[in-house]
Amino acid sequence: MIRVNDNFQELPAVYLFTQISRILAQYKEKNEGLPLIRMDIGDISGPIPSSAAHAMKEAVEELATKEGFKGYGPEQGYQFLRDLIAVKDYQQRGIEIDPTEIFIGDGAKCDLGNLGDILSKECKVAVMDPTYPAYIDDNVIDGREGKLKDGKYNRITYLKSNFENNFSPDLPTDVVDMIYICSPNNPTGAVMNYTELKKWVDYARKHKSLIIFDSAYEAYVRTPHIPRSIYEIPGAKEVAIEIRSFSKTGGFTGVRCGYTVIPKEIVGYYQDGQPVTLNALWSRRQTTKFNGASYISQKGAAALYSEKGVKEVREMTDRILSNATNLRNLFEKAGWKVTGGIDSPYVWAKNPYGWSSRETFDKLLSECGVSTTPGAGFGEEGEGYIRLTGFNSKENTDAAIKRMEKVV
Amino acid sequence: MIRVNDNFQELPAVYLFTQISRILAQYKEKNEGLPLIRMDIGDISGPIPSSAAHAMKEAVEELATKEGFKGYGPEQGYQFLRDLIAVKDYQQRGIEIDPTEIFIGDGAKCDLGNLGDILSKECKVAVMDPTYPAYIDDNVIDGREGKLKDGKYNRITYLKSNFENNFSPDLPTDVVDMIYICSPNNPTGAVMNYTELKKWVDYARKHKSLIIFDSAYEAYVRTPHIPRSIYEIPGAKEVAIEIRSFSKTGGFTGVRCGYTVIPKEIVGYYQDGQPVTLNALWSRRQTTKFNGASYISQKGAAALYSEKGVKEVREMTDRILSNATNLRNLFEKAGWKVTGGIDSPYVWAKNPYGWSSRETFDKLLSECGVSTTPGAGFGEEGEGYIRLTGFNSKENTDAAIKRMEKVV
Repeated sequence: MIRVNDNFQELPAVYLFTQISRILAQYKEKNEGLPLIRMDIGDISGPIPSSAAHAMKEAVEELATKEGFKGYGPEQGYQFLRDLIAVKDYQQRGIEIDPTEIFIGDGAKCDLGNLGDILSKECKVAVMDPTYPAYIDDNVIDGREGKLKDGKYNRITYLKSNFENNFSPDLPTDVVDMIYICSPNNPTGAVMNYTELKKWVDYARKHKSLIIFDSAYEAYVRTPHIPRSIYEIPGAKEVAIEIRSFSKTGGFTGVRCGYTVIPKEIVGYYQDGQPVTLNALWSRRQTTKFNGASYISQKGAAALYSEKGVKEVREMTDRILSNATNLRNLFEKAGWKVTGGIDSPYVWAKNPYGWSSRETFDKLLSECGVSTTPGAGFGEEGEGYIRLTGFNSKENTDAAIKRMEKVV
Repeated sequence: MIRVNDNFQELPAVYLFTQISRILAQYKEKNEGLPLIRMDIGDISGPIPSSAAHAMKEAVEELATKEGFKGYGPEQGYQFLRDLIAVKDYQQRGIEIDPTEIFIGDGAKCDLGNLGDILSKECKVAVMDPTYPAYIDDNVIDGREGKLKDGKYNRITYLKSNFENNFSPDLPTDVVDMIYICSPNNPTGAVMNYTELKKWVDYARKHKSLIIFDSAYEAYVRTPHIPRSIYEIPGAKEVAIEIRSFSKTGGFTGVRCGYTVIPKEIVGYYQDGQPVTLNALWSRRQTTKFNGASYISQKGAAALYSEKGVKEVREMTDRILSNATNLRNLFEKAGWKVTGGIDSPYVWAKNPYGWSSRETFDKLLSECGVSTTPGAGFGEEGEGYIRLTGFNSKENTDAAIKRMEKVV
């Protein structure tokens, strides 16, 4: 008999963002209110930098010649890209990361999801609340969730993240084995400083826990001394995996390329106590279940490290940051509680009127034609908040702000 | 504590093809014998068809404009490609497959590996012996293997596939829940006819089992009435998932694009007996752990269905088939037992001298500078065989044949 993975029964039937897409599709279909401006999107508005486009066209031309053709690449990624990342993103910033510790993938979401393959179902997981939902759903699929009660899984530890604790949760009182940290944070836009991150690295070292550090938005950090990599914290290489993406730096959401850093110091244990490096396990997983990211995408990603590429990434992230700051200012002036919009493309705002997340979402959609993401979808602590992003164009963002001014 | 997936302890430490690569790298490094000609490769020698290259360059240019930019695509794949596949690969060949039953991915290997996410660890798995090793390794990682004894896992059923049964194994005597079938077969090159495939579909329908039909080489079938899709067999839509790839048709091994067909008729069961369609489960898995294949790759794949693309694919597969047939003829004339090389890019050959697989591999490498894959690496029944492929260029294949003539 075809027996399926029972953990799927524990999942909410529809992924949050799919649900929102459907409501927005209905809004557009009706075509009655204002033309929709999307401030909910976690997707960049492009275009991709010309440096990357040029490199990708060259890569296609190479593949179309007998001499330049490339077939299967290394499952861990091409050396040219692993070297660039090691040098430019780490070594030049004073962090010792070796190219063999860098695995190129087809995006952060895939690596985040597939990482569960190498970890035991017994691991106890901690997430922030609110959180990017995939951290939880990935672990539900893998069977680390326990039972769902009042919207929470009893085997998952939820770490409250709110204005009271400056979006830097307290350490858990129980011992957890895997901790997801995202900074700059999705959805709250909050950014952890050195002391806050060090607290987690120390906890993980003490309890031999694993930190999965989602650093997809590090390119948005402008404030000096805010860590862009968890490896800026001493000892982090023993306990932390870092996941990054070219989606929010090179507009690669449709191109698909990212990378995962697994330092060789991180040791996991089999049930019999035998140690094994996570680097070796992930390499084994990838050589079995993955065939490398597209050569074209990897060539495009490499171009983002060229002089021109760096400048283009900076311009793109500057524009998005400016949008986010303008959104932040709108809500702050209106007396909302706001975080994000500084060092982060996300803005997280709570109205002073007692509106629920969904009420706020509905109001802004129906009265302004502006879509946001209801904060409650990211966890209990998100109730009352909405998430907005700076990823749309400046024109659209300015127009959305103008429309919302009268309502917020 | 970081507890890891104990199933990795049950895996052979090195994936077969990684092992062979190392031996060949040493051969090249020594640089003593004849220049290496690779007849072992499962990788096409390219180049990619100009139709695909043209479409991919256009796609890059689109992404580089504000108007043409595409961000996250649908996790299930772009409609334009799902529609093309449904019509050209199925409907026009008299098979009713709906675009919503087609999921675009970044390659067959990934989909084969990730499919395990939606199936229970309790499922009993059957594979052919010899087999493509990833079918087994994927299930070991997922925990469907049991214990390793004498090179075999006690929870996996191995179906002997050899000259005695014309490479069409008998049905298992026990009841299995998941059966991997690859036709045209890797590594044996054998092709199942209608009657042989129907036997498996009938078995699966009787026992409510799942067939995972790897049809990555269907484009090589030239003989009339040989099924190119398992859905040519009545009832297969209730029990079979079909996985295909553009790697061996459009030379997309480095471009990364493939697809998986999951008809809505396939029903799986939770432990409590509740039914669920595998189509819905896979869609949920993909929206959580995947972010769609590269837009550029999908545009390239679509171009393979154009008039020019079809012609180019035909020329490429014709050339490879011709290489494979020439290899087959060489060994046949020399009195070896040979299968494959007809309707298949693979040739599977056993020497009449009692040489082991590894001895044959070593002999052809040291005396001819020709690399092959030792059959024993594909399973116990592969001992004594080597696998060769037609994927190298005509020039190289002809040269390799000339060198081997004196030795075989």
